[in-house]
Amino acid sequence: MARFITKQKNTKNVIPGSPVFVGNQKEENTRIRLIGYDENELEEVELETINELENYISKYKRLWINIDGLHDVELVRKVGELFGIHTLILEDIVNTDQRPRVDIEEHYIFTSIKMMFLNKEKHQLEAEQISMYLLKNVLITFQEKQGDIFESVRERLRNKTGRVRNYNTTYLKYCLLDVIVDNYNFLMETFGEKVEDLEDKILLQPNKNTLQEINKYKIELNYFRKAIRPAREAINSFRALKTELITKKEQPFFNDLNDLVQRSYDSVENYKSMLSEQLTVYSTNVNNRLNDIMKILTIFSVVFIPITFIAGIYGTNFEYIPELRYRSGYFVMWGVILLTVLIMLGYFKYKKWF
Amino acid sequence: MARFITKQKNTKNVIPGSPVFVGNQKEENTRIRLIGYDENELEEVELETINELENYISKYKRLWINIDGLHDVELVRKVGELFGIHTLILEDIVNTDQRPRVDIEEHYIFTSIKMMFLNKEKHQLEAEQISMYLLKNVLITFQEKQGDIFESVRERLRNKTGRVRNYNTTYLKYCLLDVIVDNYNFLMETFGEKVEDLEDKILLQPNKNTLQEINKYKIELNYFRKAIRPAREAINSFRALKTELITKKEQPFFNDLNDLVQRSYDSVENYKSMLSEQLTVYSTNVNNRLNDIMKILTIFSVVFIPITFIAGIYGTNFEYIPELRYRSGYFVMWGVILLTVLIMLGYFKYKKWF
Amino acid sequence: MARFITKQKNTKNVIPGSPVFVGNQKEENTRIRLIGYDENELEEVELETINELENYISKYKRLWINIDGLHDVELVRKVGELFGIHTLILEDIVNTDQRPRVDIEEHYIFTSIKMMFLNKEKHQLEAEQISMYLLKNVLITFQEKQGDIFESVRERLRNKTGRVRNYNTTYLKYCLLDVIVDNYNFLMETFGEKVEDLEDKILLQPNKNTLQEINKYKIELNYFRKAIRPAREAINSFRALKTELITKKEQPFFNDLNDLVQRSYDSVENYKSMLSEQLTVYSTNVNNRLNDIMKILTIFSVVFIPITFIAGIYGTNFEYIPELRYRSGYFVMWGVILLTVLIMLGYFKYKKWF
Amino acid sequence: MARFITKQKNTKNVIPGSPVFVGNQKEENTRIRLIGYDENELEEVELETINELENYISKYKRLWINIDGLHDVELVRKVGELFGIHTLILEDIVNTDQRPRVDIEEHYIFTSIKMMFLNKEKHQLEAEQISMYLLKNVLITFQEKQGDIFESVRERLRNKTGRVRNYNTTYLKYCLLDVIVDNYNFLMETFGEKVEDLEDKILLQPNKNTLQEINKYKIELNYFRKAIRPAREAINSFRALKTELITKKEQPFFNDLNDLVQRSYDSVENYKSMLSEQLTVYSTNVNNRLNDIMKILTIFSVVFIPITFIAGIYGTNFEYIPELRYRSGYFVMWGVILLTVLIMLGYFKYKKWF
Amino acid sequence: MARFITKQKNTKNVIPGSPVFVGNQKEENTRIRLIGYDENELEEVELETINELENYISKYKRLWINIDGLHDVELVRKVGELFGIHTLILEDIVNTDQRPRVDIEEHYIFTSIKMMFLNKEKHQLEAEQISMYLLKNVLITFQEKQGDIFESVRERLRNKTGRVRNYNTTYLKYCLLDVIVDNYNFLMETFGEKVEDLEDKILLQPNKNTLQEINKYKIELNYFRKAIRPAREAINSFRALKTELITKKEQPFFNDLNDLVQRSYDSVENYKSMLSEQLTVYSTNVNNRLNDIMKILTIFSVVFIPITFIAGIYGTNFEYIPELRYRSGYFVMWGVILLTVLIMLGYFKYKKWF
Repeated sequence: MARFITKQKNTKNVIPGSPVFVGNQKEENTRIRLIGYDENELEEVELETINELENYISKYKRLWINIDGLHDVELVRKVGELFGIHTLILEDIVNTDQRPRVDIEEHYIFTSIKMMFLNKEKHQLEAEQISMYLLKNVLITFQEKQGDIFESVRERLRNKTGRVRNYNTTYLKYCLLDVIVDNYNFLMETFGEKVEDLEDKILLQPNKNTLQEINKYKIELNYFRKAIRPAREAINSFRALKTELITKKEQPFFNDLNDLVQRSYDSVENYKSMLSEQLTVYSTNVNNRLNDIMKILTIFSVVFIPITFIAGIYGTNFEYIPELRYRSGYFVMWGVILLTVLIMLGYFKYKKWF
Repeated sequence: MARFITKQKNTKNVIPGSPVFVGNQKEENTRIRLIGYDENELEEVELETINELENYISKYKRLWINIDGLHDVELVRKVGELFGIHTLILEDIVNTDQRPRVDIEEHYIFTSIKMMFLNKEKHQLEAEQISMYLLKNVLITFQEKQGDIFESVRERLRNKTGRVRNYNTTYLKYCLLDVIVDNYNFLMETFGEKVEDLEDKILLQPNKNTLQEINKYKIELNYFRKAIRPAREAINSFRALKTELITKKEQPFFNDLNDLVQRSYDSVENYKSMLSEQLTVYSTNVNNRLNDIMKILTIFSVVFIPITFIAGIYGTNFEYIPELRYRSGYFVMWGVILLTVLIMLGYFKYKKWF
Repeated sequence: MARFITKQKNTKNVIPGSPVFVGNQKEENTRIRLIGYDENELEEVELETINELENYISKYKRLWINIDGLHDVELVRKVGELFGIHTLILEDIVNTDQRPRVDIEEHYIFTSIKMMFLNKEKHQLEAEQISMYLLKNVLITFQEKQGDIFESVRERLRNKTGRVRNYNTTYLKYCLLDVIVDNYNFLMETFGEKVEDLEDKILLQPNKNTLQEINKYKIELNYFRKAIRPAREAINSFRALKTELITKKEQPFFNDLNDLVQRSYDSVENYKSMLSEQLTVYSTNVNNRLNDIMKILTIFSVVFIPITFIAGIYGTNFEYIPELRYRSGYFVMWGVILLTVLIMLGYFKYKKWF
Repeated sequence: MARFITKQKNTKNVIPGSPVFVGNQKEENTRIRLIGYDENELEEVELETINELENYISKYKRLWINIDGLHDVELVRKVGELFGIHTLILEDIVNTDQRPRVDIEEHYIFTSIKMMFLNKEKHQLEAEQISMYLLKNVLITFQEKQGDIFESVRERLRNKTGRVRNYNTTYLKYCLLDVIVDNYNFLMETFGEKVEDLEDKILLQPNKNTLQEINKYKIELNYFRKAIRPAREAINSFRALKTELITKKEQPFFNDLNDLVQRSYDSVENYKSMLSEQLTVYSTNVNNRLNDIMKILTIFSVVFIPITFIAGIYGTNFEYIPELRYRSGYFVMWGVILLTVLIMLGYFKYKKWF
Repeated sequence: MARFITKQKNTKNVIPGSPVFVGNQKEENTRIRLIGYDENELEEVELETINELENYISKYKRLWINIDGLHDVELVRKVGELFGIHTLILEDIVNTDQRPRVDIEEHYIFTSIKMMFLNKEKHQLEAEQISMYLLKNVLITFQEKQGDIFESVRERLRNKTGRVRNYNTTYLKYCLLDVIVDNYNFLMETFGEKVEDLEDKILLQPNKNTLQEINKYKIELNYFRKAIRPAREAINSFRALKTELITKKEQPFFNDLNDLVQRSYDSVENYKSMLSEQLTVYSTNVNNRLNDIMKILTIFSVVFIPITFIAGIYGTNFEYIPELRYRSGYFVMWGVILLTVLIMLGYFKYKKWF
């Protein structure tokens, strides 16, 4: 069976505060993409090296820097220097085993969250860590892998769809988080359908694979929950903390995000308890079927054991067995046997065994 | 078996803040009904198109706008524009997968809640989302389907029963919520009777359908709980938050509502734990009956196995078996057999097996 | 089996705020009893009609009005009018399905609580709703049924026992609540003895009635808990809320009440978990006994199956079976059989089966 | 089995606020012991009657009054009068069914707690209620029974060991509580060793006594928890509440006490969940052994049933059975039988049954 | 099996506030190591006796005193005197059964925490108590045993790696705690792999050792949790409490520590629930296999019992059994037997038993 729980690399002897890449995806190239935009203009640039970045920083009103591939620790460090990011946060960005969390400070908001997706080749859930560092007019996003999950947001930026071009980078950040959390709900929906399909199977045609299936779903759900529970805590903290980076106008969007992630967490908890109940029902059903098996065995044994004994008696070789002499002895024996069978069957009928 | 958990439509690639209808009920017509009223007068109007609405807004002291059918997203958007409703709230109104919640702001209260009802044709619980947007003197309600659940309140308005005509739209809103929550309690009562009937069956005449029944009730309860738990949270927030829309005079009504929804939530939790206990009792009972079956099998086997062996011995064809020669050998064998049977039965009697 | 969970009457189409009697006890007569008292004097009056009440209100320094029988809604309404009781509270008084609760307001305290008692004829727990409306110098109590539960307090009033005559009606209210809560503890004590008696039975002589008994106690406890849990919340709220009706001198009494109800709630939770554990132990014990049964069956089968086979072999009618010719063949067979039996028994001895 | 849960006496018709002794220990004599002390001097006095007490009250700088035996209600009442103790507190002192609790008021601290000890004759846990009433320079302690649990503290007072002579009575009170809570930890330690010994037994040599043992420990733990849980709450309240009776210098001691009682509560919870897990493991183990039993039965049955049938076939008395005529028929039958046996055994080998 | 839960020594009769060594490790020598350092210089000293310590205290800007071996209570007392450590804290330092905790006061922070490690010889988890007493420029650490766990930090100090030389002792303390908590995560990772390996075994090839393994892991996890749960609480308190010893610059490090310990606690809880689920799955699987065994037994019994009976019938010695006379009787019997077998097998096929 597939391993869902990511193995952590040993970071035991690492000095705290020094970024070390912990992850499995070794992308050939890291990719640095910039989108500078305001209400009227938008420019997309892909940088060759990180050194070019400096030239662009103050060029645009709003800037989104997206970095794919975290194994280039040097690059991350340079970005950190450029924007004054605390070394512990840099460490968290490259350490992809990080628990999702949100740091809201006066002049920046750091968010680390897991993107979940279904790897269709391996038929398993996978998680990718997305880190976001939000400054007044700059949003820096770090992805473990090159991917197109944020393409829909990019399209909106390009086409001026919705209000993303008119609002600040805080709103852009909300849009990206919304994509991620919406995806949670989409996955839970897919998952939910499988769990519900299981429900019928358990009662009507349970077999050993059913047990394996329940178990598999439990593991998947545990994996999902591990990502979503701290994500919920993290997103919830947007509501409590006040920061100039989230204005009153933007607050409702984060509240909405909170409802969204709460809904997917509710689903996780709901399916978790459903699976537990399904296991109990399955197990009770297994016992029920054991009862059925034993009933059959018992009926046959109880019916045939006495009559086999009767036949055994008249198979003995005693010299003087009076019954054997009677011409109708054999037929009388059959009569007794049939009577015994009828009594036994009557007894089981009375006990409502069939 | 029926599917109780509503399938969500994929809203994955939807821009946040743009209302998209998510639901299955495609009503042929949306229906816009207005009731304008004050202490002395009441007028009911049914609009053809949403454009007429503007003419009525300031005509009455208190106005209740009821919109049935949410698939006409354009209409909802127009209503939103007219009353300055935030686009995220509009999205929540048309997205019928929304978790129940309450937004209490200075000048408006938005409430999204599930109406539960028993679809008698399909023999299953169904949920309908009701959204309410309360302004100072205007209450706008959105229903997924055309229905008459609020007819009793309309009657009261028409007949000046109770104080609904004399109080503000906040009180009207309370009346509508009261109808919904009261209905929860009515459903739980019906449900409770079925669960209690089950209780006797489990101990006295359990069978495989009993397991299916327990399971079915568990699923129904899960479904119900999914709607009622966030509803409880939502209604509870009426107590904590202060808003000019709920005056001191109206506060007790919302406290009362809170007690009502808490009672139905208590029932849900109560029946949930009752069903779990019933499953345990059922399962223990199944084991008890396995014991009974095995006792019967064991009694028969243990009694007949030794005597069948005895008969087998004297069925052997050895040339010299002394016992066979005695004239009374056969009867002595019977004696030994009877003695064996009595000893065995005595043993089971001693063990209190029957 | 008896139904413990009270069925609620359908109050679905009732206008909120209008009192409707929901209950089963139709007393022939409602009974209105007044006790007016101060340190020196005490007068007991039984009213014929509610209209006489007005004459007595300001006659005494302290007044206790006790109304038995709630089906006379008109009467309750009139009392409400006389003392300015909110219609929602009146509704709660006559609706005997109400959750216990306390409303502490500036000038009144409303308390709704369940009196539990053991109906000795029906051998079941029953609950009666007691509502108390406390004003500065007046205490109005409403009982579903005529009963003598408060007789002990009346005696104390008459005989000037304790400080009830010297203190205000707040203290009188405390005395009545104390009677009710003390009774919870008394019932739990009786219940606890039955549960503990069960404990021995489960291990030493479990049978099918034991399962029924556990189940019965679980249902009773659920019923009790349904009444006592909200009562605990309610009584607890006396501590938190400040009101001029409870003076500093009286506060310790309500704290004490709180400890008392907490103790009975602790007992409920304790017995609940004890019953769950007992069910698990019972179930494990059932399995243990299945093991014993199967051991007996297996020992007999395993011992006799091989020797029956041996006898079967020599019962075959082959023309040439050398062993049959030997004069001692029969005895050798017996020897082999005995050896087989000894080996088998030795094996079970080794396995520690007996 | 021993009854661990103390039976409560019926205090149903008792007027609240009047002390009534509820307990089983009827000591022949109550014993009143005084220790008056300051940094330099210490005097121990044993009073004959309570009336002498008055003479000693103001004689010493610090005074510890210890009263053994609570059945002399009159005595307790007199002490109460002398020190102005609220009647409800007096009631709690003599009612030994009281939940542990702490009342911190401006001028006094009342503490009621359970001393646990192992009655070595009856092999059971027993609880004794200790009440402490702390005033500025006076500590009054009430014990159900004469006992020497506080002897170690008395020794320290006499020998000036530690700082008990130099500090106020608040510190003395802490010392006494420390003795009690330390004893909890000592008992839990003893208990823990028994639970751990059980752990091995369950896996390696489970029998029916093991189930009884698990059950016995569960009951003992429930009993212990009933005393320790409210004690934890009570001791915790020392931290939160500010009173002039606990100075800043003494605060760390009570914090320490809190850690100590928390540790013993952690142990209770820990052992409780260990016992639950042990029951599950035991139960699974029972099932495992059922499997083993059934395997043996099945192997024997499946091997012998077919060959017994073969022998049965050749035991029939048909006139024409060709095989019987062959001289080697008998040996061929043996060959077939051996082959069948080998096939069966091979099958079970393949199934890894042995 | 190994004992994981440390036995506590009896500290029952100990005067509170007097340090007594409670632990098993009797090191031959205690070892006192000093590291004095600032940005530019570093000096390491190993003291012979505690008396030399005084000379070094004010010599360095920052001082780390590390004491290995706690059995020398006198030494600890002297250190306490030198730095004004409260006697209760000294008691906690030498009592190695202490719950992890943090005391944050104005001028000092005391931290007691458990270092966990895997004893490779005994194949079991072991815990060592580390106490840290932090003053403005001095950090005193106490270890139960001589060990090299902090060697990595010492190396960093020596080599000026990271910022440890430039920051205050508060940062040094953070580094040490980071080593300990990082180690928790490393252990949980190792543990997690074993639990996941178990997962496959349970479904595919469960045996009795599997149950023992689950049980063993449960005990280990309990042991781990006992150390880590209070550690989490303790480290969490760094966030809440304000002290001049933790400056704003250092706060993020402690927040990070909090995330780290939370992650390992999440893992503990996660594996705990995984093991519970595994036990349920295992148990259900055991039942499934019982079903398989019973199926085999039943198939064989039900097929052979009737045909053995048929053979038995024709083994009877009645003088007149018509069937025996027919020449083809024997073959007809075989036909009937085969037919019976086919019907039985068909029935099981229909029941989907194989």
